[in-house]
Amino acid sequence: MSENTNKTLEELYGIIKKAAILSSCAGVLEWDERTYMPNKGATHRSDQKALLLGMVHEQFTSKRVGELISEAEASGLAKDESSTDAVNIRELRRQYDKNVKIPKSLVEELARVTTLAESAWIEARKKRNAEEFLPWLEKVIELKRQQAQAVGYKKEPYDALLDDYEPGETAENIRNVFDGLKAQLVEIVGAIAQSNRKPNVAILEREYSIEKQAILGKMAAATIGFDLEGGRIDITTHPFCSGLGPGDTRITTRYNLNHLGQALFGIMHETGHALYDQGLDPKHYGLPMGESVSLGIHESQSRMWENLVGRSKPFWVYFFPITQKIFWESLGDVKLDEFYFAINDVRPSFIRVEADEVTYNLHILLRFEIEHAIFSGELKTNDIPAVWNKKFKSYFGITPPDDAQGCLQDVHWSSGLIGYFPTYTLGNLYAAQFFAKAKKDIGNLDEQFANGQFEQLLGWLRKNIHRHGQRYRAEELVRQVTGEPLKPSYLIKYLKDKYSPLYGI
Amino acid sequence: MSENTNKTLEELYGIIKKAAILSSCAGVLEWDERTYMPNKGATHRSDQKALLLGMVHEQFTSKRVGELISEAEASGLAKDESSTDAVNIRELRRQYDKNVKIPKSLVEELARVTTLAESAWIEARKKRNAEEFLPWLEKVIELKRQQAQAVGYKKEPYDALLDDYEPGETAENIRNVFDGLKAQLVEIVGAIAQSNRKPNVAILEREYSIEKQAILGKMAAATIGFDLEGGRIDITTHPFCSGLGPGDTRITTRYNLNHLGQALFGIMHETGHALYDQGLDPKHYGLPMGESVSLGIHESQSRMWENLVGRSKPFWVYFFPITQKIFWESLGDVKLDEFYFAINDVRPSFIRVEADEVTYNLHILLRFEIEHAIFSGELKTNDIPAVWNKKFKSYFGITPPDDAQGCLQDVHWSSGLIGYFPTYTLGNLYAAQFFAKAKKDIGNLDEQFANGQFEQLLGWLRKNIHRHGQRYRAEELVRQVTGEPLKPSYLIKYLKDKYSPLYGI
Repeated sequence: MSENTNKTLEELYGIIKKAAILSSCAGVLEWDERTYMPNKGATHRSDQKALLLGMVHEQFTSKRVGELISEAEASGLAKDESSTDAVNIRELRRQYDKNVKIPKSLVEELARVTTLAESAWIEARKKRNAEEFLPWLEKVIELKRQQAQAVGYKKEPYDALLDDYEPGETAENIRNVFDGLKAQLVEIVGAIAQSNRKPNVAILEREYSIEKQAILGKMAAATIGFDLEGGRIDITTHPFCSGLGPGDTRITTRYNLNHLGQALFGIMHETGHALYDQGLDPKHYGLPMGESVSLGIHESQSRMWENLVGRSKPFWVYFFPITQKIFWESLGDVKLDEFYFAINDVRPSFIRVEADEVTYNLHILLRFEIEHAIFSGELKTNDIPAVWNKKFKSYFGITPPDDAQGCLQDVHWSSGLIGYFPTYTLGNLYAAQFFAKAKKDIGNLDEQFANGQFEQLLGWLRKNIHRHGQRYRAEELVRQVTGEPLKPSYLIKYLKDKYSPLYGI
Repeated sequence: MSENTNKTLEELYGIIKKAAILSSCAGVLEWDERTYMPNKGATHRSDQKALLLGMVHEQFTSKRVGELISEAEASGLAKDESSTDAVNIRELRRQYDKNVKIPKSLVEELARVTTLAESAWIEARKKRNAEEFLPWLEKVIELKRQQAQAVGYKKEPYDALLDDYEPGETAENIRNVFDGLKAQLVEIVGAIAQSNRKPNVAILEREYSIEKQAILGKMAAATIGFDLEGGRIDITTHPFCSGLGPGDTRITTRYNLNHLGQALFGIMHETGHALYDQGLDPKHYGLPMGESVSLGIHESQSRMWENLVGRSKPFWVYFFPITQKIFWESLGDVKLDEFYFAINDVRPSFIRVEADEVTYNLHILLRFEIEHAIFSGELKTNDIPAVWNKKFKSYFGITPPDDAQGCLQDVHWSSGLIGYFPTYTLGNLYAAQFFAKAKKDIGNLDEQFANGQFEQLLGWLRKNIHRHGQRYRAEELVRQVTGEPLKPSYLIKYLKDKYSPLYGI
């Protein structure tokens, strides 16, 4: 490597890392906004975030960055495609070409409007009625439309948004995946519905003090590997995980006094995200080699720890006696098998984040169809509540009693996260395929879980996924790790293997 | 006003307000650092703050800002000295001339080092031993020395630091104030020590559940006017108030299960600061007209609400029955007069923030003497713990049992806040003089307090102090509001009037 190349990279990385640190400041502001910020602070917060994100955008898309990327490309560095620098240059090029097309004013306006829209969403959710939120949503959608037009797309505007979360993914491919999945899911759901066996879910709906739930949640998170010295668990309206930088990864949850599972599995889900963030290589912080591949891969980690680990029998062989001891008054009379069946109850329900593994992907399908219809111009924002309820009835056979349990349940749209939902289903598919490989590679995972040992699975994920940063695109990563392309059959097999004995189907 | 002038101001104010918003982002990061940030996040946080504060400094001291201030000065605008724009121009000139002398690298280094020094301070404080903290303090002091040299001073380096917190103030004047005060304070302390009457402080040291203390604290804050929709109360190691911008003013406290007063008066103190911040005119946000005058004036507000209101008999005529009801098990047998005497116990104690009104200023004197000696070169950092304890013995007759109750008790030095302490005593003096005038102007304040009415005092402060922003320097403000220059005799008279009947002296 010549000295000039060294200087080029040094300057390039310096600017990019600085932009990443600045962006992580906005991350702290956002975490604060969703946890502790007083109501009246919303307007000033929107000014703060608009300013910061505008500056990040300006720094990242400066002419100098473009020049430096070109210089780095022209040097020999990018030739060995698997080298760290080649990966960084490739991904910076991709991000740069995309971001440079978005005007700074749009970035600032999006930051400002989504902060206020999120406040409006919180208020509307309290009133359980979408009406006052819809004008805000309309504003957000209009700005996202502008973003899609600015960035450009091959087939349809929606693809431009999807690409933000799952680089290279298209609406067409997502529809194919859903088509392959839908029929088989519906078959399993149908068989379960016909089964005479039903879990006793009432045992989860007894009284579970929130203080104790918080302790149990922390224990579960720490047990599977969350470093609490480098993270926190707080309360919020809509649970999320926030990787604020090296040594600072925070998750949030919400508690329900009369449901044991909601917060607990929410925490395990967010812990899965957090383990990915805590597993990124801090020496590459701010550069593609130190960042996650895509939201789908991120979600594969959260869904794996929430479901494939957290709702598995072996996990509860270990964790049920602990849980029972903490909540003796409510769980003293419950047997492990009864508990295990209850936390794996499959039935139509209104809230996505509380849905079982089988119906979950139908929740995603519904959201994908609605947001896709909005962007293809088939659907008007004002019609969302009615269309939501109609679709819900047709997929689940039940109608949400109000918008809080319908189209207002998720924070995403208010935050401008459109094109984000499909990554949840991709995550489920990746998770099933990764987990099957991990089981094969490690051998006795079930036995380990039953003994409270999760280090080997975490180590496997660190080695095969986390430490690679963005070395591989999602599609290629799946191939590298499992030796096969993405196959939805892994998820279907996992579900059948698990639910057949439970429901006798 | 010509169109050009308008444009000049518009550009100038735009840059300054942007810098203020950016600086308020650093404020959120700092609040978070002291309340919720996980330990391992400290290094990344120091990078974040260094970057932000470096950028603020760069924006504020840019050549363009200098040109714009000069243009504004040359226009007719600054002529009517009392006009809003004239005030802004005058104060921006003062800040600009000072800040432009400080290299950006020093600003960044200070942000970085103080963040780490504060973490080291927290650790050392846990171990109750200063030893491991002293090398960090040495680094902070060295950087502050560089700052003093860069900024320049007339008489001595310490003045350059003092000027950051109390513009125009000098060490010489502070020494004169203390000289005038010390003899009279010592006389009152002596008379009280000789008195046979002693309050029953044990009643405050019964068990007071922290949950209930938090409720009582919130009630007290809201009662005197703190807007909880635009603020919060959290827990921290060293209590502070943070004005993060319009609609977002946060205070922090720490609770002691076995002391009722510590958190409660701490909260009233920080609420006093918060009322000042919440009283600033949001339309001038970011500009001198929307900022507080000085730390001394800020402290006058906190000390007034903490002591002149919060430890007054009339306040407790109203608030004691409420407090007694909440803590019936611990206070059911206590009479108002007994309680009032207990919260006004005067005696030597180790912790400044928990000190009574009479001995408080001796705590400040000690700190002033030490930090002044450091900067005049008479004292070495490593000798601070020993000198602290020796001086403490000579002023208070008792020796701190460990450094946590000695030189490690305050966050200030670790944060680089050197030259800050004297403003506390100035605050006490301003408070007494302002309060005497408010009583005279309003008439029946005692009666109002006894009825739980604090709106008129707050309104008086808003009108006479808060809404003026930096229109007047501290010295001039005192003259404008009270018709007299600062006179320590107001504090002495207040103390004598209050403590003579209590102790029969």
